[in-house]
Amino acid sequence: MPKQVDHEQRKVQIAEATWRVIVEEGLEHATVRKIARKAGLSAGSLRHYFPTQSELLLFSMELVSNRIKKRFRNKHYKGSPLEVLMEMLSELLPTDEEKRVEMEVWFVFSAKTLVDQNLRHLSNQLYLELHGWINILFHKLQEDNMLKKGLNLDIELDRLHTLIDGLAIHHLLYPKMFTLEEMTRTLQYHLESICQFNKNNHQSP
Amino acid sequence: MPKQVDHEQRKVQIAEATWRVIVEEGLEHATVRKIARKAGLSAGSLRHYFPTQSELLLFSMELVSNRIKKRFRNKHYKGSPLEVLMEMLSELLPTDEEKRVEMEVWFVFSAKTLVDQNLRHLSNQLYLELHGWINILFHKLQEDNMLKKGLNLDIELDRLHTLIDGLAIHHLLYPKMFTLEEMTRTLQYHLESICQFNKNNHQSP
Repeated sequence: MPKQVDHEQRKVQIAEATWRVIVEEGLEHATVRKIARKAGLSAGSLRHYFPTQSELLLFSMELVSNRIKKRFRNKHYKGSPLEVLMEMLSELLPTDEEKRVEMEVWFVFSAKTLVDQNLRHLSNQLYLELHGWINILFHKLQEDNMLKKGLNLDIELDRLHTLIDGLAIHHLLYPKMFTLEEMTRTLQYHLESICQFNKNNHQSP
Repeated sequence: MPKQVDHEQRKVQIAEATWRVIVEEGLEHATVRKIARKAGLSAGSLRHYFPTQSELLLFSMELVSNRIKKRFRNKHYKGSPLEVLMEMLSELLPTDEEKRVEMEVWFVFSAKTLVDQNLRHLSNQLYLELHGWINILFHKLQEDNMLKKGLNLDIELDRLHTLIDGLAIHHLLYPKMFTLEEMTRTLQYHLESICQFNKNNHQSP
Protein backbone atom coordinates (compact mmCIF):
# COMPACT_ATOMS: atom_id res chain seq x y z
CA MET A 1 0.00 0.00 0.00
CA PRO A 2 2.37 2.73 -1.19
CA LYS A 3 -0.28 5.40 -0.76
CA GLN A 4 -0.64 4.56 2.93
CA VAL A 5 3.13 4.79 3.38
CA ASP A 6 3.24 8.18 1.69
CA HIS A 7 0.49 9.38 3.95
CA GLU A 8 2.44 8.31 7.04
CA GLN A 9 5.69 9.79 5.71
CA ARG A 10 3.97 13.08 5.07
CA LYS A 11 2.63 13.13 8.63
CA VAL A 12 6.14 12.53 9.99
CA GLN A 13 7.45 15.33 7.77
CA ILE A 14 4.79 17.68 9.17
CA ALA A 15 5.56 16.61 12.74
CA GLU A 16 9.26 17.31 12.21
CA ALA A 17 8.39 20.75 10.85
CA THR A 18 6.33 21.25 14.02
CA TRP A 19 9.37 20.40 16.15
CA ARG A 20 11.50 22.89 14.24
CA VAL A 21 8.97 25.69 14.77
CA ILE A 22 8.75 24.81 18.48
CA VAL A 23 12.53 24.73 18.93
CA GLU A 24 13.09 27.92 16.96
CA GLU A 25 10.14 30.04 18.07
CA GLY A 26 8.25 28.36 20.90
CA LEU A 27 5.03 26.42 21.16
CA GLU A 28 2.78 29.47 21.05
CA HIS A 29 4.08 30.18 17.52
CA ALA A 30 3.38 26.64 16.32
CA THR A 31 0.35 27.68 14.28
CA VAL A 32 -0.99 25.64 11.37
CA ARG A 33 0.02 28.38 8.95
CA LYS A 34 3.61 28.59 10.19
CA ILE A 35 4.09 24.83 10.34
CA ALA A 36 2.64 24.41 6.84
CA ARG A 37 5.12 26.98 5.52
CA LYS A 38 8.02 25.22 7.29
CA ALA A 39 6.89 21.86 5.82
CA GLY A 40 6.48 23.36 2.34
CA LEU A 41 2.73 22.73 2.23
CA SER A 42 -0.40 24.84 2.03
CA ALA A 43 -2.41 25.29 5.22
CA GLY A 44 -5.28 23.45 3.51
CA SER A 45 -3.06 20.53 2.63
CA LEU A 46 -1.80 20.34 6.21
CA ARG A 47 -5.39 20.28 7.48
CA HIS A 48 -5.99 17.24 5.27
CA TYR A 49 -3.49 15.35 7.43
CA PHE A 50 -4.31 17.02 10.73
CA PRO A 51 -7.81 18.55 10.89
CA THR A 52 -7.06 20.24 14.24
CA GLN A 53 -3.97 21.74 15.88
CA SER A 54 -4.58 19.44 18.83
CA GLU A 55 -4.23 16.32 16.63
CA LEU A 56 -1.08 17.75 15.10
CA LEU A 57 0.52 18.39 18.51
CA LEU A 58 -0.46 14.97 19.79
CA PHE A 59 1.07 13.24 16.76
CA SER A 60 4.23 15.37 17.05
CA MET A 61 4.59 14.44 20.70
CA GLU A 62 3.95 10.76 19.94
CA LEU A 63 6.71 10.87 17.36
CA VAL A 64 9.21 12.14 19.96
CA SER A 65 8.05 9.53 22.43
CA ASN A 66 8.39 6.71 19.86
CA ARG A 67 11.85 7.81 18.79
CA ILE A 68 13.07 7.96 22.39
CA LYS A 69 11.71 4.47 23.03
CA LYS A 70 13.05 3.07 19.75
CA ARG A 71 16.54 4.43 20.40
CA PHE A 72 16.52 2.97 23.89
CA ARG A 73 15.42 -0.45 22.62
CA ASN A 74 17.26 -0.95 19.35
CA LYS A 75 20.80 -0.03 20.21
CA HIS A 76 23.44 -2.73 20.54
CA TYR A 77 25.31 -2.23 23.75
CA LYS A 78 28.76 -3.54 24.50
CA GLY A 79 31.40 -3.32 27.20
CA SER A 80 31.47 -3.97 30.92
CA PRO A 81 28.12 -4.03 32.77
CA LEU A 82 28.74 -0.49 34.07
CA GLU A 83 29.61 0.71 30.57
CA VAL A 84 26.46 -0.88 29.15
CA LEU A 85 24.32 0.66 31.90
CA MET A 86 25.94 4.05 31.37
CA GLU A 87 25.40 3.83 27.62
CA MET A 88 21.75 2.79 27.97
CA LEU A 89 20.92 5.55 30.42
CA SER A 90 22.79 8.09 28.29
CA GLU A 91 20.13 7.48 25.65
CA LEU A 92 17.86 9.44 27.99
CA LEU A 93 20.24 12.42 28.10
CA PRO A 94 20.76 15.16 25.47
CA THR A 95 24.26 13.99 24.52
CA ASP A 96 24.02 14.94 20.83
CA GLU A 97 22.13 17.40 18.65
CA GLU A 98 19.42 14.93 17.59
CA LYS A 99 18.57 13.99 21.17
CA ARG A 100 18.85 17.62 22.22
CA VAL A 101 16.13 18.64 19.76
CA GLU A 102 13.89 15.72 20.77
CA MET A 103 14.24 16.52 24.45
CA GLU A 104 13.70 20.22 23.95
CA VAL A 105 10.46 19.41 22.17
CA TRP A 106 9.56 16.93 24.89
CA PHE A 107 10.25 19.54 27.56
CA VAL A 108 8.04 22.13 25.85
CA PHE A 109 5.27 19.54 25.45
CA SER A 110 5.67 18.53 29.10
CA ALA A 111 4.98 22.10 30.18
CA LYS A 112 1.84 21.98 28.04
CA THR A 113 0.68 18.70 29.61
CA LEU A 114 -0.07 20.73 32.74
CA VAL A 115 -3.09 22.19 30.95
CA ASP A 116 -3.76 19.67 28.15
CA GLN A 117 -5.42 16.38 29.07
CA ASN A 118 -4.64 14.57 25.78
CA LEU A 119 -0.95 15.34 25.91
CA ARG A 120 -0.85 14.47 29.60
CA HIS A 121 -2.08 10.96 28.91
CA LEU A 122 0.76 10.40 26.43
CA SER A 123 3.30 11.92 28.79
CA ASN A 124 2.14 9.62 31.61
CA GLN A 125 2.49 6.60 29.32
CA LEU A 126 6.09 7.41 28.41
CA TYR A 127 6.90 8.08 32.06
CA LEU A 128 5.59 4.67 33.06
CA GLU A 129 7.41 2.87 30.24
CA LEU A 130 10.75 4.48 31.01
CA HIS A 131 10.24 3.87 34.71
CA GLY A 132 9.56 0.22 33.92
CA TRP A 133 12.71 -0.08 31.83
CA ILE A 134 14.92 1.50 34.47
CA ASN A 135 13.34 -0.91 36.92
CA ILE A 136 14.27 -3.88 34.72
CA LEU A 137 17.86 -2.61 34.43
CA PHE A 138 17.98 -2.27 38.17
CA HIS A 139 16.75 -5.75 38.88
CA LYS A 140 19.20 -7.14 36.32
CA LEU A 141 22.01 -5.45 38.25
CA GLN A 142 20.65 -6.89 41.45
CA GLU A 143 20.50 -10.41 40.00
CA ASP A 144 24.05 -10.05 38.70
CA ASN A 145 25.09 -9.10 42.23
CA MET A 146 26.44 -5.76 41.05
CA LEU A 147 24.60 -3.45 43.42
CA LYS A 148 26.02 -2.51 46.80
CA LYS A 149 24.40 -4.21 49.77
CA GLY A 150 21.67 -2.53 51.78
CA LEU A 151 20.18 -0.34 49.07
CA ASN A 152 16.46 0.37 49.09
CA LEU A 153 15.67 -0.57 45.47
CA ASP A 154 12.33 1.23 45.29
CA ILE A 155 13.88 4.52 46.37
CA GLU A 156 17.01 3.94 44.28
CA LEU A 157 14.80 3.54 41.21
CA ASP A 158 13.07 6.87 41.94
CA ARG A 159 16.41 8.52 42.70
CA LEU A 160 17.95 7.37 39.42
CA HIS A 161 14.93 8.29 37.29
CA THR A 162 14.56 11.78 38.81
CA LEU A 163 18.32 12.32 38.64
CA ILE A 164 18.39 11.46 34.92
CA ASP A 165 15.62 13.93 34.12
CA GLY A 166 17.20 16.58 36.36
CA LEU A 167 20.53 16.12 34.54
CA ALA A 168 18.84 16.32 31.13
CA ILE A 169 16.87 19.44 31.99
CA HIS A 170 19.79 21.30 33.58
CA HIS A 171 21.93 20.69 30.52
CA LEU A 172 19.09 21.65 28.15
CA LEU A 173 18.36 24.88 30.00
CA TYR A 174 21.88 25.86 31.10
CA PRO A 175 24.24 24.22 28.57
CA LYS A 176 27.14 26.55 29.39
CA MET A 177 26.74 26.43 33.17
CA PHE A 178 26.06 22.70 33.30
CA THR A 179 28.06 21.21 30.47
CA LEU A 180 27.76 17.89 28.65
CA GLU A 181 30.88 16.72 30.49
CA GLU A 182 29.41 17.64 33.88
CA MET A 183 26.13 15.93 33.04
CA THR A 184 27.90 12.72 32.01
CA ARG A 185 30.35 12.60 34.92
CA THR A 186 27.50 13.10 37.41
CA LEU A 187 25.61 10.09 36.06
CA GLN A 188 28.82 8.03 36.02
CA TYR A 189 29.56 9.04 39.62
CA HIS A 190 26.04 8.17 40.70
CA LEU A 191 26.18 4.71 39.13
CA GLU A 192 29.55 4.03 40.73
CA SER A 193 28.14 5.09 44.08
CA ILE A 194 25.52 2.33 43.98
CA CYS A 195 27.55 -0.36 42.21
CA GLN A 196 30.09 -2.71 43.72
CA PHE A 197 32.99 -1.91 41.42
CA ASN A 198 34.90 1.17 40.31
CA LYS A 199 36.08 1.41 36.74
CA ASN A 200 37.82 4.79 36.83
CA ASN A 201 39.26 7.44 39.05
CA HIS A 202 36.17 9.15 40.41
CA GLN A 203 35.91 8.74 44.12
CA SER A 204 32.63 7.13 44.90
CA PRO A 205 30.64 7.75 48.09
CA MET B 1 5.11 57.56 48.54
CA PRO B 2 1.75 55.78 48.68
CA LYS B 3 1.19 56.16 44.96
CA GLN B 4 4.43 54.32 44.21
CA VAL B 5 3.40 51.49 46.53
CA ASP B 6 0.01 51.24 44.85
CA HIS B 7 1.71 51.08 41.49
CA GLU B 8 3.93 48.21 42.64
CA GLN B 9 1.02 46.39 44.31
CA ARG B 10 -1.01 46.66 41.14
CA LYS B 11 1.86 45.19 39.13
CA VAL B 12 2.06 42.26 41.56
CA GLN B 13 -1.70 41.77 41.29
CA ILE B 14 -1.39 41.65 37.49
CA ALA B 15 1.54 39.22 37.67
CA GLU B 16 -0.47 36.92 39.93
CA ALA B 17 -3.34 37.05 37.46
CA THR B 18 -0.82 36.09 34.78
CA TRP B 19 0.25 33.05 36.82
CA ARG B 20 -3.36 31.97 37.23
CA VAL B 21 -4.00 32.17 33.49
CA ILE B 22 -0.79 30.20 32.82
CA VAL B 23 -1.63 27.50 35.37
CA GLU B 24 -5.24 27.20 34.22
CA GLU B 25 -4.89 27.55 30.45
CA GLY B 26 -1.24 27.58 29.43
CA LEU B 27 1.23 30.24 28.39
CA GLU B 28 -0.12 30.59 24.85
CA HIS B 29 -3.43 31.80 26.32
CA ALA B 30 -1.75 34.41 28.51
CA THR B 31 -2.88 37.29 26.33
CA VAL B 32 -3.16 40.87 27.59
CA ARG B 33 -6.91 40.75 27.20
CA LYS B 34 -7.34 37.53 29.19
CA ILE B 35 -4.96 38.59 31.96
CA ALA B 36 -6.66 41.97 32.25
CA ARG B 37 -10.02 40.26 32.66
CA LYS B 38 -8.59 37.91 35.31
CA ALA B 39 -7.09 40.90 37.17
CA GLY B 40 -10.34 42.86 36.91
CA LEU B 41 -8.80 45.60 34.75
CA SER B 42 -9.30 46.94 31.26
CA ALA B 43 -6.73 45.97 28.64
CA GLY B 44 -5.80 49.65 28.36
CA SER B 45 -5.23 49.92 32.08
CA LEU B 46 -3.03 46.81 32.03
CA ARG B 47 -0.96 48.34 29.22
CA HIS B 48 -0.36 51.36 31.45
CA TYR B 49 1.57 49.06 33.80
CA PHE B 50 3.05 46.76 31.15
CA PRO B 51 3.28 48.32 27.68
CA THR B 52 4.29 45.00 26.11
CA GLN B 53 3.47 41.33 26.79
CA SER B 54 7.20 40.67 27.02
CA GLU B 55 7.57 43.11 29.95
CA LEU B 56 4.57 41.52 31.65
CA LEU B 57 5.99 38.00 31.32
CA LEU B 58 9.42 39.11 32.53
CA PHE B 59 7.94 40.79 35.62
CA SER B 60 5.76 37.74 36.32
CA MET B 61 8.78 35.46 36.12
CA GLU B 62 10.84 37.81 38.32
CA LEU B 63 8.09 37.68 40.91
CA VAL B 64 8.26 33.86 41.04
CA SER B 65 12.04 34.00 41.25
CA ASN B 66 11.97 36.56 44.08
CA ARG B 67 9.40 34.61 46.07
CA ILE B 68 11.41 31.39 45.77
CA LYS B 69 14.55 33.21 46.93
CA LYS B 70 12.75 35.04 49.74
CA ARG B 71 11.21 31.85 51.08
CA PHE B 72 14.58 30.12 51.02
CA ARG B 73 16.26 32.99 52.87
CA ASN B 74 13.72 34.16 55.43
CA LYS B 75 12.59 30.96 57.02
CA HIS B 76 13.72 30.07 60.53
CA TYR B 77 15.02 26.56 60.58
CA LYS B 78 15.25 24.35 63.63
CA GLY B 79 16.11 20.75 64.51
CA SER B 80 19.09 18.50 63.93
CA PRO B 81 21.49 19.43 61.10
CA LEU B 82 19.90 16.82 58.81
CA GLU B 83 16.43 18.13 59.64
CA VAL B 84 17.50 21.71 58.92
CA LEU B 85 19.10 20.68 55.63
CA MET B 86 16.02 18.68 54.66
CA GLU B 87 13.75 21.60 55.52
CA MET B 88 15.85 24.11 53.57
CA LEU B 89 16.02 21.96 50.47
CA SER B 90 12.31 21.17 50.71
CA GLU B 91 11.73 24.87 50.04
CA LEU B 92 12.81 24.03 46.49
CA LEU B 93 10.21 21.27 46.14
CA PRO B 94 6.45 21.60 45.46
CA THR B 95 5.41 20.42 48.94
CA ASP B 96 2.33 22.65 49.23
CA GLU B 97 -0.18 24.34 46.93
CA GLU B 98 1.57 27.74 46.99
CA LYS B 99 4.93 26.30 45.95
CA ARG B 100 3.23 24.02 43.45
CA VAL B 101 1.73 27.00 41.62
CA GLU B 102 5.04 28.90 41.68
CA MET B 103 6.96 25.94 40.34
CA GLU B 104 4.40 25.18 37.68
CA VAL B 105 4.72 28.77 36.48
CA TRP B 106 8.51 28.51 36.69
CA PHE B 107 8.44 25.29 34.67
CA VAL B 108 6.30 26.86 31.94
CA PHE B 109 8.59 29.91 31.84
CA SER B 110 11.64 27.63 31.72
CA ALA B 111 10.32 25.99 28.58
CA LYS B 112 9.91 29.46 27.10
CA THR B 113 13.49 30.47 27.99
CA LEU B 114 14.59 28.09 25.23
CA VAL B 115 13.38 30.66 22.70
CA ASP B 116 13.28 33.91 24.70
CA GLN B 117 16.57 35.65 25.45
CA ASN B 118 15.21 38.00 28.16
CA LEU B 119 13.61 35.24 30.16
CA ARG B 120 16.71 33.09 29.73
CA HIS B 121 18.88 35.69 31.40
CA LEU B 122 16.60 35.72 34.45
CA SER B 123 16.45 31.93 34.53
CA ASN B 124 20.26 31.71 34.42
CA GLN B 125 20.50 34.15 37.33
CA LEU B 126 18.19 32.12 39.55
CA TYR B 127 20.03 28.93 38.61
CA LEU B 128 23.36 30.44 39.65
CA GLU B 129 21.97 31.81 42.92
CA LEU B 130 20.39 28.53 43.95
CA HIS B 131 23.52 26.66 42.92
CA GLY B 132 25.56 29.04 45.08
CA TRP B 133 23.27 28.49 48.08
CA ILE B 134 23.38 24.73 47.81
CA ASN B 135 27.15 25.05 47.57
CA ILE B 136 27.24 27.06 50.82
CA LEU B 137 25.04 24.44 52.55
CA PHE B 138 27.41 21.77 51.32
CA HIS B 139 30.54 23.44 52.57
CA LYS B 140 28.87 24.09 55.91
CA LEU B 141 28.20 20.35 56.20
CA GLN B 142 31.79 19.66 55.26
CA GLU B 143 33.11 22.09 57.91
CA ASP B 144 30.84 20.51 60.51
CA ASN B 145 32.34 17.15 59.58
CA MET B 146 28.92 15.76 58.67
CA LEU B 147 29.66 14.48 55.18
CA LYS B 148 30.94 10.98 54.56
CA LYS B 149 34.62 10.72 53.67
CA GLY B 150 35.80 10.49 50.08
CA LEU B 151 32.98 12.40 48.40
CA ASN B 152 33.74 14.53 45.36
CA LEU B 153 32.10 17.78 46.49
CA ASP B 154 31.87 19.36 43.03
CA ILE B 155 30.02 16.38 41.62
CA GLU B 156 27.94 15.95 44.79
CA LEU B 157 26.78 19.56 44.40
CA ASP B 158 25.68 18.91 40.81
CA ARG B 159 24.08 15.62 41.81
CA LEU B 160 22.05 17.24 44.59
CA HIS B 161 20.95 20.22 42.51
CA THR B 162 19.88 18.13 39.52
CA LEU B 163 18.18 15.60 41.81
CA ILE B 164 16.15 18.34 43.50
CA ASP B 165 14.89 19.69 40.19
CA GLY B 166 14.23 16.18 38.90
CA LEU B 167 12.20 15.41 42.03
CA ALA B 168 10.25 18.66 41.73
CA ILE B 169 9.46 18.15 38.05
CA HIS B 170 8.43 14.51 38.39
CA HIS B 171 6.00 15.39 41.17
CA LEU B 172 4.65 18.40 39.25
CA LEU B 173 4.09 16.40 36.07
CA TYR B 174 3.09 13.03 37.56
CA PRO B 175 1.64 13.81 41.00
CA LYS B 176 -0.23 10.50 41.24
CA MET B 177 2.59 8.29 39.95
CA PHE B 178 5.30 10.10 41.90
CA THR B 179 3.67 11.26 45.09
CA LEU B 180 4.63 13.93 47.60
CA GLU B 181 5.67 11.17 50.00
CA GLU B 182 7.90 9.52 47.37
CA MET B 183 9.48 12.85 46.48
CA THR B 184 10.25 13.63 50.12
CA ARG B 185 11.56 10.19 51.03
CA THR B 186 13.89 10.18 48.01
CA LEU B 187 15.50 13.46 49.09
CA GLN B 188 15.76 12.21 52.68
CA TYR B 189 17.37 8.97 51.48
CA HIS B 190 19.82 10.86 49.29
CA LEU B 191 20.91 13.14 52.13
CA GLU B 192 21.36 10.18 54.45
CA SER B 193 23.48 8.46 51.80
CA ILE B 194 26.02 11.28 51.84
CA CYS B 195 25.88 12.20 55.53
CA GLN B 196 27.63 10.45 58.41
CA PHE B 197 24.58 9.81 60.55
CA ASN B 198 21.20 8.10 60.17
CA LYS B 199 18.21 9.62 61.84
CA ASN B 200 15.56 7.12 60.84
CA ASN B 201 14.90 3.70 59.47
CA HIS B 202 15.71 4.10 55.81
CA GLN B 203 18.63 1.95 54.81
CA SER B 204 21.26 4.18 53.34
CA PRO B 205 23.67 3.13 50.57
